[in-house]
Amino acid sequence: MGYRGIHHLGFAVDDLDEAVATYERLFGAEVEDRATGEGLAGANVLVGGGRIELLAAEDADTPIGRFLASRGPGLHHVAYQVGDVDSVLAQLRERGLRLIDEAPRTGIRGSRVAFLHPAASGGVLTEIVQPAEGH
Amino acid sequence: MGYRGIHHLGFAVDDLDEAVATYERLFGAEVEDRATGEGLAGANVLVGGGRIELLAAEDADTPIGRFLASRGPGLHHVAYQVGDVDSVLAQLRERGLRLIDEAPRTGIRGSRVAFLHPAASGGVLTEIVQPAEGH
Repeated sequence: MGYRGIHHLGFAVDDLDEAVATYERLFGAEVEDRATGEGLAGANVLVGGGRIELLAAEDADTPIGRFLASRGPGLHHVAYQVGDVDSVLAQLRERGLRLIDEAPRTGIRGSRVAFLHPAASGGVLTEIVQPAEGH
Repeated sequence: MGYRGIHHLGFAVDDLDEAVATYERLFGAEVEDRATGEGLAGANVLVGGGRIELLAAEDADTPIGRFLASRGPGLHHVAYQVGDVDSVLAQLRERGLRLIDEAPRTGIRGSRVAFLHPAASGGVLTEIVQPAEGH
């Protein structure tokens, strides 16, 4: 079906700098990049070959802000890498899957991403990611 | 520090057979193995190169049973692969990290594993896994 594996995990954090420092200290993480926008501040860190997206809310009225308010910090989503996000999304729609994004949108570093509804996958908020070529 | 990447993700599920079927259908998952024991029923499924451990409670008085009762199905833990679990656990203890397992215990397929307390890593229940040689 075109799934390549786990692209990244998204963790909701209260304080981005503190979370980055914790992951560096405990898990030998290396910062891949940082970005802010749409009321969020994020950093990708690499633990061995695994990518963790640490996400803090600069605005409470964002998906991460609401998640933190209701559940506190912790695991937020799982993202799978796919070869062709349009094709995978079309397959999922045909199978009647409940989607959050009806069409792919642009993610960081030129990727194309879409979120599926957690009700579709046992309470796990799931993202599919087609990285830009070269990433 | 000896971290090799993400070994698997643990998802708490209400019904194991239904969860396996969902992951096969939606994400093209292949079943790697299944096991029961200690009041739990689990299956490892592979989504591309990523491993997901689907965990259902056969006994409500288990960590997964209590998690399902309080939070419902969803993301449960993240496991990082390490080269030497004793060495990593000793480093974490030296840094004052709060642990669940003070010493490694035996996991599936002869692996040696230890859980860290979620308070130590921003609300994320974290496991470290040293697979048996050959796995």
